[in-house]
Amino acid sequence: MLNFEYHTPTKVVFGKDTESKAGSLIKEQGCRKVLVHYGSGSVIRSGLLDRVYASLDAEGIPYASLGGVVPNPRLTKVREGIALCQREGVDFILAVGGGSVIDSSKAIGYGVANEGDVWDFYARKRTASACLPIGAILTIAAAGSEMSNSSVITNEDGLKKRGYKSEYCRCRFAILNPELTYTLPDYQTQSGCVDVLMHTMERYFNQSTNMEMTDGISETLLRTVMKNSLILKKDPQNYDARAEVMWASSLSHNGLTGCGTDGGDWASHQLEHELGGMFDVAHGAGLAAIWGTWARYVCKDRLDRFAKFAENVLLIPHSEDLEQMALLGIQAMEDYFRSIGMPTSLHKLGIAPSEEQILELADKCSFGNTRTIGKVRELNREHIADIYRLARGI
Amino acid sequence: MLNFEYHTPTKVVFGKDTESKAGSLIKEQGCRKVLVHYGSGSVIRSGLLDRVYASLDAEGIPYASLGGVVPNPRLTKVREGIALCQREGVDFILAVGGGSVIDSSKAIGYGVANEGDVWDFYARKRTASACLPIGAILTIAAAGSEMSNSSVITNEDGLKKRGYKSEYCRCRFAILNPELTYTLPDYQTQSGCVDVLMHTMERYFNQSTNMEMTDGISETLLRTVMKNSLILKKDPQNYDARAEVMWASSLSHNGLTGCGTDGGDWASHQLEHELGGMFDVAHGAGLAAIWGTWARYVCKDRLDRFAKFAENVLLIPHSEDLEQMALLGIQAMEDYFRSIGMPTSLHKLGIAPSEEQILELADKCSFGNTRTIGKVRELNREHIADIYRLARGI
Repeated sequence: MLNFEYHTPTKVVFGKDTESKAGSLIKEQGCRKVLVHYGSGSVIRSGLLDRVYASLDAEGIPYASLGGVVPNPRLTKVREGIALCQREGVDFILAVGGGSVIDSSKAIGYGVANEGDVWDFYARKRTASACLPIGAILTIAAAGSEMSNSSVITNEDGLKKRGYKSEYCRCRFAILNPELTYTLPDYQTQSGCVDVLMHTMERYFNQSTNMEMTDGISETLLRTVMKNSLILKKDPQNYDARAEVMWASSLSHNGLTGCGTDGGDWASHQLEHELGGMFDVAHGAGLAAIWGTWARYVCKDRLDRFAKFAENVLLIPHSEDLEQMALLGIQAMEDYFRSIGMPTSLHKLGIAPSEEQILELADKCSFGNTRTIGKVRELNREHIADIYRLARGI
Repeated sequence: MLNFEYHTPTKVVFGKDTESKAGSLIKEQGCRKVLVHYGSGSVIRSGLLDRVYASLDAEGIPYASLGGVVPNPRLTKVREGIALCQREGVDFILAVGGGSVIDSSKAIGYGVANEGDVWDFYARKRTASACLPIGAILTIAAAGSEMSNSSVITNEDGLKKRGYKSEYCRCRFAILNPELTYTLPDYQTQSGCVDVLMHTMERYFNQSTNMEMTDGISETLLRTVMKNSLILKKDPQNYDARAEVMWASSLSHNGLTGCGTDGGDWASHQLEHELGGMFDVAHGAGLAAIWGTWARYVCKDRLDRFAKFAENVLLIPHSEDLEQMALLGIQAMEDYFRSIGMPTSLHKLGIAPSEEQILELADKCSFGNTRTIGKVRELNREHIADIYRLARGI
């Protein structure tokens, strides 16, 4: 078991009608002016944005607004947000949306609170020393950005999707009302569930000794999300199922499921980031499409973990043959992905990268052959290209 | 599932040698002068206090010291601490010890940061509006005070043991080094494990609908603590077992195991508080001595929960007869208590309250017959006296 730090200062306000508390929660932060940041028109059409404005008005909090954030959020929009905040004297950002909007808000927050070009942080040229305070009203359970220390932005110049982590960007509060996710299309709901699962699975598959508390929490989280995603497939307005998945999304990525470990193996996320940057696929769907291939490629280096995962999450019967257990577990996970309508190959994801594109993806993912990814098995540019090729499928 | 708030701002620094970070962690808080607050001489003899002082000296942080906190910490000592802090201009308290020291530090923090008599908060006459910032270096896994919003103080005037909760007292940081608990006597270790278990069990047995995520986390926490307390019985210097129990102690009482519920049924704690006030017993041992009697007294009002507890925590086989499952679960829990050397009756706890004392305990516990306790079943003064009588045992 390794030493660890765990710090989740985000105040969670969970349940029905909690968006009405936005104004009072921001008031507690003592800010001058808020940027209300959102994505598509759905938050306008649903009336959510009007309720948020009413809550701010009730507390006498002035605000500016910026919509139009897209999935795989773009650097151009971040720069637009930074300029707007500087012009308007904004000192608090309220993100109303999912991971893309919250991540974009974090990037804007870095851009306003630090000198120089915000992309430097994502390009690993510099580290940030501050971030504007951020609050979130979540509209999809997926990225876990509402409690995490990370954000991911896509730079249109070269279609590079890059993440940056620091403690400065943790949300001051997160308003989690499961009802706000009732109207999501099923594909978005299920893609979100995969993302939630993967934030715990990436931590679970590591190359260190582990902590029983962490493993137990991780396994219960995975089983709970799988069970409830199947309920939502048939009954998308099931409050309890929406709530289980939403709470899991926050716990999956706030650090709890990595305590005492080496932080895990984030190869699937890194492989998917390049797909998302080049093809603009839904993040969770991209993860489902790549995971099984990655898992079969690396599982021999950590058969004990894959067998434990198979037994405790997929309920594969215990056997002495760890490799067989591992492979049955991977297969069961892929069966589950298919049962919720998620792809298990690039073909089923709807993309067919050429050999040239695969080499480009592998080159980008390895930062031009200057880094390896993964911990269960360390993967270089050639391994990465192998996995993309094997994941193509039919 | 009920709406909830979850806010755990305490920064956890977990693992070997982490006490050496005390100085830098306090430095981050920007305070002028620290009170180093501790209990018995064991932290002196072990050299821990010297290491803490060295860490403060290295950062140039001035400090005053106050030792002598006892289990079931006393109001007189709290008043002494308040006066010392006021005299010395202390603006940060570093608690070096277990729940008694941290709770005592919280009470001192309230006393310094608010006007008037600090006992008013515990007597429910007023609410606090502030608390001095507190950090903790934990030396026993038990009370969970290092991440909780609660503290419990005993007023020698009438031997009343009372708790007070507010968000102001949450520790800024908690240093959790499992090695610091190696030298605890077994009785203290096991009594601590019971306290950790009970903080989750009190939340688990409630009168509301529940959340699968919360139940799953609770059940894995209970199984993990039970398993590792048995390991510690034979191998007290097992690092991993100490670490599992220590991390569980913080998660058990920081709010995580109550999310989405009505907050739980704290009758066992309230019954034990009066025992602790009158007889000065170890808190966890007192809880073990009373729990089984309480559980049998109330379980018919929530057989589904007791049966689920029996099946998922004690591994009692599923059956249609929920009452039988519930009773088998309670019996198995008592068997476990006995296996770690904990008492399952007041007699085994070493106390034999007279009928007169039982009436006095029941009167105090019901605040002079002005409140009921419990949620699974609401208990009045007469029920409370019944339970104390039934718990006497042989």
